[in-house]
Amino acid sequence: MDVFESTESEVRSYCRGWPATFRKATGSHLYDEEGRPFLDFFAGAGTLNYGHNNPHLKENLLEYLSGDNIIHSLDMYTVAKREFLETFRDVILKPRGLDYRVQFPGPGGANAVEAALKLARKYTGRNTVVSFTNAFHGMSLGALAVTGNSMKRRSAGIPLQTLAMPFDNYLDGQTPDFLLFERLLADSGSGLDTPAAVIVETVQGEGGLNAASPEWLRGLSELCRQHEILLIVDDIQMGCGRTGPFFSFEQAGITPDIVCLSKSLSGYGLPFAVTLLKPELDVWDPGEHNGTFRGPNPAFVTATAAMQHFWADDGMEKQTIAKSEQVQEALDRVAAAHPEGVSGTRGRGLAQGLAFTEPAHASAVCAAAFERNLLLETSGPESEVVKLLPPLTSTPDELAEGLDIIADSVKTVLV
Amino acid sequence: MDVFESTESEVRSYCRGWPATFRKATGSHLYDEEGRPFLDFFAGAGTLNYGHNNPHLKENLLEYLSGDNIIHSLDMYTVAKREFLETFRDVILKPRGLDYRVQFPGPGGANAVEAALKLARKYTGRNTVVSFTNAFHGMSLGALAVTGNSMKRRSAGIPLQTLAMPFDNYLDGQTPDFLLFERLLADSGSGLDTPAAVIVETVQGEGGLNAASPEWLRGLSELCRQHEILLIVDDIQMGCGRTGPFFSFEQAGITPDIVCLSKSLSGYGLPFAVTLLKPELDVWDPGEHNGTFRGPNPAFVTATAAMQHFWADDGMEKQTIAKSEQVQEALDRVAAAHPEGVSGTRGRGLAQGLAFTEPAHASAVCAAAFERNLLLETSGPESEVVKLLPPLTSTPDELAEGLDIIADSVKTVLV
Amino acid sequence: MDVFESTESEVRSYCRGWPATFRKATGSHLYDEEGRPFLDFFAGAGTLNYGHNNPHLKENLLEYLSGDNIIHSLDMYTVAKREFLETFRDVILKPRGLDYRVQFPGPGGANAVEAALKLARKYTGRNTVVSFTNAFHGMSLGALAVTGNSMKRRSAGIPLQTLAMPFDNYLDGQTPDFLLFERLLADSGSGLDTPAAVIVETVQGEGGLNAASPEWLRGLSELCRQHEILLIVDDIQMGCGRTGPFFSFEQAGITPDIVCLSKSLSGYGLPFAVTLLKPELDVWDPGEHNGTFRGPNPAFVTATAAMQHFWADDGMEKQTIAKSEQVQEALDRVAAAHPEGVSGTRGRGLAQGLAFTEPAHASAVCAAAFERNLLLETSGPESEVVKLLPPLTSTPDELAEGLDIIADSVKTVLV
Amino acid sequence: MDVFESTESEVRSYCRGWPATFRKATGSHLYDEEGRPFLDFFAGAGTLNYGHNNPHLKENLLEYLSGDNIIHSLDMYTVAKREFLETFRDVILKPRGLDYRVQFPGPGGANAVEAALKLARKYTGRNTVVSFTNAFHGMSLGALAVTGNSMKRRSAGIPLQTLAMPFDNYLDGQTPDFLLFERLLADSGSGLDTPAAVIVETVQGEGGLNAASPEWLRGLSELCRQHEILLIVDDIQMGCGRTGPFFSFEQAGITPDIVCLSKSLSGYGLPFAVTLLKPELDVWDPGEHNGTFRGPNPAFVTATAAMQHFWADDGMEKQTIAKSEQVQEALDRVAAAHPEGVSGTRGRGLAQGLAFTEPAHASAVCAAAFERNLLLETSGPESEVVKLLPPLTSTPDELAEGLDIIADSVKTVLV
Repeated sequence: MDVFESTESEVRSYCRGWPATFRKATGSHLYDEEGRPFLDFFAGAGTLNYGHNNPHLKENLLEYLSGDNIIHSLDMYTVAKREFLETFRDVILKPRGLDYRVQFPGPGGANAVEAALKLARKYTGRNTVVSFTNAFHGMSLGALAVTGNSMKRRSAGIPLQTLAMPFDNYLDGQTPDFLLFERLLADSGSGLDTPAAVIVETVQGEGGLNAASPEWLRGLSELCRQHEILLIVDDIQMGCGRTGPFFSFEQAGITPDIVCLSKSLSGYGLPFAVTLLKPELDVWDPGEHNGTFRGPNPAFVTATAAMQHFWADDGMEKQTIAKSEQVQEALDRVAAAHPEGVSGTRGRGLAQGLAFTEPAHASAVCAAAFERNLLLETSGPESEVVKLLPPLTSTPDELAEGLDIIADSVKTVLV
Repeated sequence: MDVFESTESEVRSYCRGWPATFRKATGSHLYDEEGRPFLDFFAGAGTLNYGHNNPHLKENLLEYLSGDNIIHSLDMYTVAKREFLETFRDVILKPRGLDYRVQFPGPGGANAVEAALKLARKYTGRNTVVSFTNAFHGMSLGALAVTGNSMKRRSAGIPLQTLAMPFDNYLDGQTPDFLLFERLLADSGSGLDTPAAVIVETVQGEGGLNAASPEWLRGLSELCRQHEILLIVDDIQMGCGRTGPFFSFEQAGITPDIVCLSKSLSGYGLPFAVTLLKPELDVWDPGEHNGTFRGPNPAFVTATAAMQHFWADDGMEKQTIAKSEQVQEALDRVAAAHPEGVSGTRGRGLAQGLAFTEPAHASAVCAAAFERNLLLETSGPESEVVKLLPPLTSTPDELAEGLDIIADSVKTVLV
Repeated sequence: MDVFESTESEVRSYCRGWPATFRKATGSHLYDEEGRPFLDFFAGAGTLNYGHNNPHLKENLLEYLSGDNIIHSLDMYTVAKREFLETFRDVILKPRGLDYRVQFPGPGGANAVEAALKLARKYTGRNTVVSFTNAFHGMSLGALAVTGNSMKRRSAGIPLQTLAMPFDNYLDGQTPDFLLFERLLADSGSGLDTPAAVIVETVQGEGGLNAASPEWLRGLSELCRQHEILLIVDDIQMGCGRTGPFFSFEQAGITPDIVCLSKSLSGYGLPFAVTLLKPELDVWDPGEHNGTFRGPNPAFVTATAAMQHFWADDGMEKQTIAKSEQVQEALDRVAAAHPEGVSGTRGRGLAQGLAFTEPAHASAVCAAAFERNLLLETSGPESEVVKLLPPLTSTPDELAEGLDIIADSVKTVLV
Repeated sequence: MDVFESTESEVRSYCRGWPATFRKATGSHLYDEEGRPFLDFFAGAGTLNYGHNNPHLKENLLEYLSGDNIIHSLDMYTVAKREFLETFRDVILKPRGLDYRVQFPGPGGANAVEAALKLARKYTGRNTVVSFTNAFHGMSLGALAVTGNSMKRRSAGIPLQTLAMPFDNYLDGQTPDFLLFERLLADSGSGLDTPAAVIVETVQGEGGLNAASPEWLRGLSELCRQHEILLIVDDIQMGCGRTGPFFSFEQAGITPDIVCLSKSLSGYGLPFAVTLLKPELDVWDPGEHNGTFRGPNPAFVTATAAMQHFWADDGMEKQTIAKSEQVQEALDRVAAAHPEGVSGTRGRGLAQGLAFTEPAHASAVCAAAFERNLLLETSGPESEVVKLLPPLTSTPDELAEGLDIIADSVKTVLV
């Protein structure tokens, strides 16, 4: 029995579907310890938008580390943090006409969500937070309480009942958007307290690649505005360019009150997260929310390099949109070829999926892809969706190669 | 107005007491951007037990990064993770006769605590978790609910009433240990449900450097055993050698059911945390608790190097104990010199404190120390304790230098 | 200042709309201390279905009290309790093919609801209870947590967020019944835990006289059956014949798992409540739910007399239906005469209402009716509905007299 | 199988220990349907302080009912309510120098407790309510959450962890009163939020006849005053003269902020409860807490008669104290005669108990007493205390008779 089986907790899961021990990784590929290459259509669940070991970021990181620059700094001021903040302000916020304060809430996405929820409740003096069907916001207690998946939620060991509204198209277009939500908010006897906040993903990555339309997002934003409810966009997985623009909500033309970013924020796979707040919401007392890993300087460095390298102009966004069309066309072809087995395509940008009528087929397709050297995961409440999250830096050829493997794997499974 | 003031949230706090922008750091020193050196008696709140940019760890890290080895891997198997697990098993667990499964719960200490609480509730099927007065376990909702500090807890924006028992010596020896707790557990009408778990720090770092005696810890462990309550030791700040041995509970000779580690675990200031579980408690379903940053390979590498370098024998432990005596003697002298202003010394190992009769004096001492190029923080519910957390690798001369500055600062303040 | 103003809490409310001090009452009339008669279209909010001081019940009660029979007996066996149980079984349950165990949960409706919720959670081992928009179930914490009215719920002083589904026709027929609820239950990622129970009123008396259609109730019952969710009907206000049959759910042909009865159960205005449980749900341990006033023998006596007198055949039901048609026709005429001011009629049986476009008009109509010696109350989240709850024993002439006053009052207000 | 077994819920309990069907009752005696008399040392768990069918109250009640006076009135003004309020003010409050507003919260004690908790939270804007070990406050969710008994609390089906402080002498005098509570309140890191209120019984009837000393009650009152915490005395069982004076807290000379009364308030066993509030706490909005049975006019009538008849002077109080001495002496003799089997006597006034070393002996004594025609119940978390709650109107001879039976029963059991 190896050390993983003898010593690592049973909670481990990805390793069960991908029985390999990985050693190296560059660009769109991972390599196991025998040197077998895998094309990566998973990108660390959206954490590696710029691929593995991006050479530009690597150079900056090595230089920083070699120079005995400060690594860990809690929320002290550091040169690396200043450069991150200035770059974030100048490259990301200003060109988009956005004005946010940056909070460093802790190293992971769940920290960003917890801080957002706490601040929304403090600012409004209200308790309720409305989330959406099939939402995923994290594993700590506050984040779990707004997460849809019942297995994850049950793991809390205490009752955590979400207050979930239907996400866009949840009822297959049978009801007008927000018909129920608007009525509940307007009716003082509805049983719904005016919420402190609504928390939403623009595309539900874990929930099955459900993509909200720009109209729906605008409707939600307007509803929140009317009822003075804070709008929190959890852009942890879909931000940093995954759907094309840096923020996934740009396409809808909305400005959330609070935004959570993490995953690809460091650009290099290093733990890093921020919570962005409209300045008027910044009612935190000093130290009211703290934590050990709020000053991850190596991540400041790679994040700064990633913004400068990839986001100084709109090239990244345009390329992602072009690549997403390539992916969508290929998936449409697969869906068209298997009208019974495949129930449809899902997603937006480079977060796309193929939904299967029979949930088990999705896992089988991922297993067949793994045999063909492609890393691919499922998503959705029944794991019924094959999820494609390739690095944004994947070449058209790499995408084509992976899409061919998918087509082939689907064919094998659905025969 | 600089970018920190214009763009970073008001929640920032350490930077307020230490008005400097830091650039570099090595060993026991930090340097601001003008090159002014500061002796570090804070060590990233216990995250930098081996000092800043330890050259041995740095060498391993640079080699790993340069070689395009895998950086981010969720819970996939990697070569770096295998080496971490094998080293942890062989260097840390086996020599101490400990048998734990290792869970990677997410990048920070709060993740380790959240996972511990969830598992304890799942395993026992009970809800209540008992914590202690002045406990500190983290900022996410589950961790906050077992944290004593009312300002932090209130930040949740929803009622979070802890169920806290008195910590060792909380009532100044006026009651036998566990008199109340035992009675409540034995009495089915007491109003205390049998808890799923008790969560405890052996020394309360944030709560005022309150150190539990070995006898008290043994009594707690025995009480838990009798009532089949799981004992969780939050060793996030006091583990990794801070009090002498690798685990802070070794001195008491107890074996907790669950242990949380983070802060100095990576040894280099990188975000990393584990939750250790007795094998029989490992009832997690695969993927039941997940998260993005559970495979931080650079941290695996530095953690492995730190264990090999510092913990292959008992040298580290012995040195820490010797240094702690040096610190304690110096603090005793300061206390003796100011019998009215200083109410006592606190702590154990290289986590020690000086408690002030007038809370404001503690902050004033830290400010005076900063002027004298020493980084020093307060602790305790009223910030009434000056807290010393120097790197374990501080030389006796460095310690002496810092202790002199403290003595001088106290003198200045208490005049 | 009289004793009411000086000594009774500000929480008092009905007395504010009806500035009179009542002394006597018989049949459909109340009399104030000056002897001014009032026609009663309120019936103690549905507590006096058989009118005030019904002579048959009074005779039985006086005989019982005169004979020094036992008054208060907790849950001891008494002769009066045996007669109540036998009569309830033989007159109410058996002829309707119903098989329920009877629990005496305490003297009021909220006790019946609290017992129902506790048992549903115990039996299923689940936590969530789904209620409906504009539901009203009582003022104790458990009952409040399933009540829609935000002002009432807020009075708890702690967050009590209901989990409310839309009641029948809540969205004005724009969506199929249970479209959302079914989808949420079928989807393990929806965020809705499988509930222990659904609690519903067939006609929402306090919520605005919203009447669920038989089809909707059957749909709800079937949905509960499919998902093994317990169906609780709160028949506290609508039971005991208010809508025609003894139980208000008989028209729909459904059999709830748990039924709450109170208000008119004693028939005489005495505090009394029962919770009815399907025998297989009777998993209570002896004494697990207790209480002081579970053996109100005078109420047993009047309840027994009421059942024997009014429910031995179907005469009561038929008369109520006939009277309800008289009421409905009259209200339809009023509505038709004021198409702008009156937005519609509501309700079923002798629980009917007139909804006003402008909420303030409803209160004005009640005030005008009071001037005309008619007691009439409002209902609905904005108090926008004039509610008619006359005694079921009101004569057609009395009904006609009251309906004329209403028509006249509406005319006065809407001019 | 009789109707009780076939049709009443398994939750029934007193009937299990007293296998008889009761028909009549007068004074200190009940009679079963065969005419077998039982001496009552239970008094409806303290609901029948003036005995069964007291002729004076009965006369007033029959006259009221015969005259077609109003029975049920919600919170409308009635002549009977005015007389109750005037009498309560003039006979109970004024002579004791008390100034309270009277709220009619619903028919039972739990309603009085729920209203008290809601108001305390509303008034203070805080959430936490501190209760005591072995407290009993009722079966509805809010009341259960401050009740010590774990079996009762578990029946809620959702986690209800009380926040309980040790009651007087809980630790057998090993710690000074309030040592822990004071420290927790003074320490902002203790984990205890400043509570909205403390709720306490002066003698814990269900919890084992634990009587708080006047000193302890004064200490508690003073602690509440210092920290601006509301003091709620639940005088449901111990009020109305059970310990001597009308209110059980009079002996301690304290004035609670809120008082709950029920049980013997109607004097006749009829459901009735009030919540008394200091005038400045009366921040209720009209109708914010409502309920069906808040105007139980027959209970107003008997309560008024009881106050006039029993409380116009201090005779009742003096007699109760004299009788309590008779009881205490007899119990002391029993205890002295069985130093091993009986662990002590408990209680105050006519609420006294005999605690057994072996809990099963207490039930056995009650069973032996029943065979000897005496009704007697157990109390305490393990039902280890034989509880004596005879009517206050019991004659010395009746008391002597019952005490002899107890002595005899104890002898039988402990042989």
